[in-house]
Amino acid sequence: MTADDAKTELLRLRSSIDNLDAALIHLLAERFKCTAQVGQLKARAGMPSADPDREAVQIARLRALSDEAGLDPAFAEKILNVIIAEVIRNHQAFLEN
Amino acid sequence: MTADDAKTELLRLRSSIDNLDAALIHLLAERFKCTAQVGQLKARAGMPSADPDREAVQIARLRALSDEAGLDPAFAEKILNVIIAEVIRNHQAFLEN
Repeated sequence: MTADDAKTELLRLRSSIDNLDAALIHLLAERFKCTAQVGQLKARAGMPSADPDREAVQIARLRALSDEAGLDPAFAEKILNVIIAEVIRNHQAFLEN
Repeated sequence: MTADDAKTELLRLRSSIDNLDAALIHLLAERFKCTAQVGQLKARAGMPSADPDREAVQIARLRALSDEAGLDPAFAEKILNVIIAEVIRNHQAFLEN
């Protein structure tokens, strides 16, 4: 493989990565729309922001899905924890405003 | 809204969140397939694992996309940084093996 071939192949892969990243951003935007609704519902119904039982089920399910899809389950759990921390932060900010 | 209505609505929203999370996992699995190919290509061509210029362009683009999609750009950058750190870790592990 020449240096030009390598560069062409790198550009091809990066174009796919950019498409996947745009899809990720839009999925995350949609997910936060859902969790904003959950936050409003919980605030109205007086439910607590965090729900450790639900989180444990989510993490176990996503670890299993990751394993099937060939994604490192530990990495999937790390990402989900970053997302959940942001959701809880948003719910608490909503309660304080 | 009764407590039963709130519970039904919560289950409806959680079902959507679970669908979006499954899609996120599959997109991430596909993204890591692409970056594994990038890692192999870089190793063969002797290119460095990290590419700060490329990362800066990706972050700026995803922040703009997030802004349009109604997602907090700072959160999108945080997630991308977690993903990029994992990609670089994988590339380095590939080089060491």
